[in-house]
Amino acid sequence: MHTLQLTKPDGRSLTLYSRAPLEGIADAPSPFLEPLGRSPHLRRHPLRDEWITYAAYRQDRTFLPPPEYNPLAVTVDPAAPTELPQGAWDVAVFDNRFPSLAPGADEAPPSIVETAPGTGKCEVVVFTQDRLSSLGRLPLSHIELLLQVWADRTAKVGAGTDIQYVLPFENRGAEVGVTLHHPHGQIYAYPSVPPVPARMQQVAQAYYERTGRGVLQDHIAKEIEDAQRLVYRGEYAVVFVPAAARYPYEVWVATIDPVATFCDLSGPQRADLARALKTVLMKYDALWHRPFPYLMAWYQAPTDGRPHPESHLHAEFYPPYRTRERLKYLAGTEIAAGWFAMDALPEDKALELQQIHVDVDA
Amino acid sequence: MHTLQLTKPDGRSLTLYSRAPLEGIADAPSPFLEPLGRSPHLRRHPLRDEWITYAAYRQDRTFLPPPEYNPLAVTVDPAAPTELPQGAWDVAVFDNRFPSLAPGADEAPPSIVETAPGTGKCEVVVFTQDRLSSLGRLPLSHIELLLQVWADRTAKVGAGTDIQYVLPFENRGAEVGVTLHHPHGQIYAYPSVPPVPARMQQVAQAYYERTGRGVLQDHIAKEIEDAQRLVYRGEYAVVFVPAAARYPYEVWVATIDPVATFCDLSGPQRADLARALKTVLMKYDALWHRPFPYLMAWYQAPTDGRPHPESHLHAEFYPPYRTRERLKYLAGTEIAAGWFAMDALPEDKALELQQIHVDVDA
Repeated sequence: MHTLQLTKPDGRSLTLYSRAPLEGIADAPSPFLEPLGRSPHLRRHPLRDEWITYAAYRQDRTFLPPPEYNPLAVTVDPAAPTELPQGAWDVAVFDNRFPSLAPGADEAPPSIVETAPGTGKCEVVVFTQDRLSSLGRLPLSHIELLLQVWADRTAKVGAGTDIQYVLPFENRGAEVGVTLHHPHGQIYAYPSVPPVPARMQQVAQAYYERTGRGVLQDHIAKEIEDAQRLVYRGEYAVVFVPAAARYPYEVWVATIDPVATFCDLSGPQRADLARALKTVLMKYDALWHRPFPYLMAWYQAPTDGRPHPESHLHAEFYPPYRTRERLKYLAGTEIAAGWFAMDALPEDKALELQQIHVDVDA
Repeated sequence: MHTLQLTKPDGRSLTLYSRAPLEGIADAPSPFLEPLGRSPHLRRHPLRDEWITYAAYRQDRTFLPPPEYNPLAVTVDPAAPTELPQGAWDVAVFDNRFPSLAPGADEAPPSIVETAPGTGKCEVVVFTQDRLSSLGRLPLSHIELLLQVWADRTAKVGAGTDIQYVLPFENRGAEVGVTLHHPHGQIYAYPSVPPVPARMQQVAQAYYERTGRGVLQDHIAKEIEDAQRLVYRGEYAVVFVPAAARYPYEVWVATIDPVATFCDLSGPQRADLARALKTVLMKYDALWHRPFPYLMAWYQAPTDGRPHPESHLHAEFYPPYRTRERLKYLAGTEIAAGWFAMDALPEDKALELQQIHVDVDA
């Protein structure tokens, strides 16, 4: 992996990653020249005891680009800069111009609830220079590079003592609110472990203390033995519709043996994980012969400097459709109670994905 | 309050409620004649340690009504029965034909995860006979009756030893997935306290043990003193945009003094709570001169037979819009991390609602 780190005129960081050496790239462009003046702050929810970020300046976005303007394209005309330079890079990561969390955030304004500075980091991860491609259409070696990029970001961003959790994710499709269709994801780095991974850590820790094994490790062993819901089974990685799926086409992508973070993947594990990921993405898009929307989230161990033998790196995909035409809305019971209700059995949805044949080496 | 309980031909229960005596209603109609053959089951999520309901028969709905058919209208032609009879009822409650949870549910099929029968209850609450009305347009006395209905359902449904939590809610608007626009809500009764209220109970209990007071009680006292985000202030009830709102137009509706469940409301509290509720609903609809979509959830104490001095009945409204034209999508950070990010300050949204004047007595 070759990397090049640059600084944009407004002070934001840009890192370029590539499989081949990077040469002749000198400048990091930016559609913005002035540093952002304000910073986000946190308020604590009194009844749920969890943080909420307020980044009111996100409303200030006076920058109204024409519809054909793509800030994730490379800059062709220096008078109309985008976020990215020309050059032979494969993956690019830069600081979000309107971050929900930012390093060195100011003190929060006073409130009747507990407050804190909105410390953290929000990065944009551009998967490829080709705006018409998608994560699942990239070659395996490119997806492997992306797994290395996520490892590099986890190590670099997570090294900060004020960062406790690094979450790479992708929102894909207009159905989940995406307006910019150039293939990209995001990384959020949090000053404390957020509620959902905190809950998962708590469950995993209790299980590990009781059994000396990982809860996902044991679940994967059962999924492999049962085989009913398997979507991909490699030597080191696996994809399945989990027996307790909360979304109709939910899948989990994981190494078979526990690996705490992206940084702990061996070469063979990474290669097979790339293959697993590409397999399910190709199946998703082949299912209805159209780009399949989803939220993809990668859970890993907290970056708190402690060992986490209970953690097990994996992705969870939450697609918004329950059938080709019908969206699954999260409503009363899901949002208000946190109790999911499913019309579809995981076994039936797995069968649909199993019946699609794809060639990841083509 | 006058009530009449009837049984539908397929065995489901129907209860009619009214302010005036109910006479001459003998039959409970139903679009379905045969009892439902299958029942829901639960599976336990191994990583989150929470239940998910599977009600696969919901997909079986072979009943495909014409678009103008309204099952919540009263039956006019006995050959084309709806869910409701003619008569002078104001509010009606009946068992959902396709429940996510049902009394006496069968044993779950075997799985690699922990399973349980899908015990519980799902009810439909029809707010009025007028399909063109809405909760906020009903007279105060009608809304007071609805608060009594919720109390009656909490008492009756919650009396079952297999019911631990009763959650009344309303999904309003196509934006939150509602296809049936006749004014109605739902009640879900759960066999254990679901994750979100369980978390709130845990926080409230710890606070109560530490201080001898309610966490919402103290928060309301601060909101009243601060006054910045108040939307309604009555003698017994209050409405405000909470200082740590997670949705742009989120409001909470509550009694000022803690009341554990709907059953514990005094007459004056209930009357003022109805006024508070109507006020915010009228403001919502006046904001953009169109029906304002939302999820409304009523949190109350668990129905586990134990006293809950830490509990405080209240409604939380989660509207899907962040501006008149733009939806707030729950994406990576909200869904995957449980860490909400807000573009708007609660103080600004409260001001918008404060500036709207409505007359609830008109």
